[in-house]
Amino acid sequence: MTSAVPKVSRFVHPRRVQFSETDMAGIVHFAEFYRYMEEAEHAFLRSVGLSVMMHNDDGSILGWPRVRCQCGFKAPAYFEDRLDIEVRVQRIGVKSLTLDYVFTRDDGPEANGGQPTLIAEGSMKTVACTFTPDRKMTSVAVPEALLDRIEEVGK
Amino acid sequence: MTSAVPKVSRFVHPRRVQFSETDMAGIVHFAEFYRYMEEAEHAFLRSVGLSVMMHNDDGSILGWPRVRCQCGFKAPAYFEDRLDIEVRVQRIGVKSLTLDYVFTRDDGPEANGGQPTLIAEGSMKTVACTFTPDRKMTSVAVPEALLDRIEEVGK
Amino acid sequence: MTSAVPKVSRFVHPRRVQFSETDMAGIVHFAEFYRYMEEAEHAFLRSVGLSVMMHNDDGSILGWPRVRCQCGFKAPAYFEDRLDIEVRVQRIGVKSLTLDYVFTRDDGPEANGGQPTLIAEGSMKTVACTFTPDRKMTSVAVPEALLDRIEEVGK
Amino acid sequence: MTSAVPKVSRFVHPRRVQFSETDMAGIVHFAEFYRYMEEAEHAFLRSVGLSVMMHNDDGSILGWPRVRCQCGFKAPAYFEDRLDIEVRVQRIGVKSLTLDYVFTRDDGPEANGGQPTLIAEGSMKTVACTFTPDRKMTSVAVPEALLDRIEEVGK
Repeated sequence: MTSAVPKVSRFVHPRRVQFSETDMAGIVHFAEFYRYMEEAEHAFLRSVGLSVMMHNDDGSILGWPRVRCQCGFKAPAYFEDRLDIEVRVQRIGVKSLTLDYVFTRDDGPEANGGQPTLIAEGSMKTVACTFTPDRKMTSVAVPEALLDRIEEVGK
Repeated sequence: MTSAVPKVSRFVHPRRVQFSETDMAGIVHFAEFYRYMEEAEHAFLRSVGLSVMMHNDDGSILGWPRVRCQCGFKAPAYFEDRLDIEVRVQRIGVKSLTLDYVFTRDDGPEANGGQPTLIAEGSMKTVACTFTPDRKMTSVAVPEALLDRIEEVGK
Repeated sequence: MTSAVPKVSRFVHPRRVQFSETDMAGIVHFAEFYRYMEEAEHAFLRSVGLSVMMHNDDGSILGWPRVRCQCGFKAPAYFEDRLDIEVRVQRIGVKSLTLDYVFTRDDGPEANGGQPTLIAEGSMKTVACTFTPDRKMTSVAVPEALLDRIEEVGK
Repeated sequence: MTSAVPKVSRFVHPRRVQFSETDMAGIVHFAEFYRYMEEAEHAFLRSVGLSVMMHNDDGSILGWPRVRCQCGFKAPAYFEDRLDIEVRVQRIGVKSLTLDYVFTRDDGPEANGGQPTLIAEGSMKTVACTFTPDRKMTSVAVPEALLDRIEEVGK
């Protein structure tokens, strides 16, 4: 029964740029975009009723280490900008999940003919893994329940 | 037998300021100083042969959560500055440890009459705690071996 | 005319803990609390219609370097916690502003007799400064308009 | 005259993992690798006698915004690990510079048949830009002197 889960065809996570995320060039430091992607990913998972770090019964934790991550930067972002981060499901594998992230900023009706400004585009491939307290990390199949919900809402 | 431990009367941790640690005002963001203190603390502990996160036999971890931390900022630090962080033992308690941190920068023979420029002064009080996988945190006595070494070298 | 500025007697900034803000002890890293304070401070200033970094006509910037900052940590915070950060005006000086920050978490009606759990308490003293492109930093009087609004709303 | 510049055929930047760079999964948070790359890049540039942020005479700054950055993660890194980050010049364009980064960890003579463990592999494409105080950003040709030195030492 997943009837309580909101049906979304498009997930957007708004994020305001914080002061500590800028650098001496006056723009958002590029490494922050990877944190922004993760925040958007976790907000997306919460939005479909999923917890990111799940504690298993044996004391181990189900986590999502990254396999590969890339980002292309199109225009600088500034302090106090409100960025919209759209999350799209690119690929669902047996043990992995690849999501795309599109960063835009609404610069008002007079910029870009009223279209949002494209700031950055990224993607991340992650695998499902259990972490045990003794530092062992084992890749596992993405839980079915999670796949079902992501398929349902993430398209 | 601790004869292999170097006897230091003064511990200084050098740290170069990185680009991502600056902000749009062109100076090191103040929150970075707390990371610098922790880096200096851990380098100090390593210098006396101690590991910061010790894995106990029962799967728990001995860590050092902070009780109180403060810092006064005297002069700005800039990208690529080489800061010297001096670590001083302020107080050793039964379950806690308080260290002082003095940040200076050598601005050459012509600045300040040849004295290093004082950048910041901080202190941190930490307690010894065991963390278990189920999120329990229990304060414990500072291990004797650690106290002995800190007393020996940190004065 | 400041009639459009909302009158608040108490400013609270909600903040969800992000994954990258945790450390290997499984809790929020203490240095993140200083960023949280700054985020709450800037949200507070925005709430009274003020911009934090103001560009002056001569190309200089009005910023707010920190003079002193401290924080006491009462209970650990965890991934996905929703923290409430209350901002209180402690002192308004001619060139400085000192704000207090109280971090709490609502742990439900059965914890603490229904009271929020106190997570941390901090304070920051900042000074108004102009930054010029050639790295000069000069302390200036806190702009009157800002003082008026803070006095009006921050008590 | 560049005779004082050390001739290196291979540049390696050592980096110790700090506590605040770990996350609740007990490993280095993936976003930190992008900061590590930048640190290695700047150390590489310093090693050939170059400054990263150059202040031009007109008050503008020559900086290096990122165009594209990617990283593949092969094995987790842990607190206090000493990572070796090798910097390789992949491509030098008229206005851009693409560097590769290979992260390894020496796990001793008994691991991997004595070979270093591959931790991650990344690359970054950057463009030369001038930043003016009024937030204008203009791409410019990579300074000749820089190209000469990078070609000389970075191969």
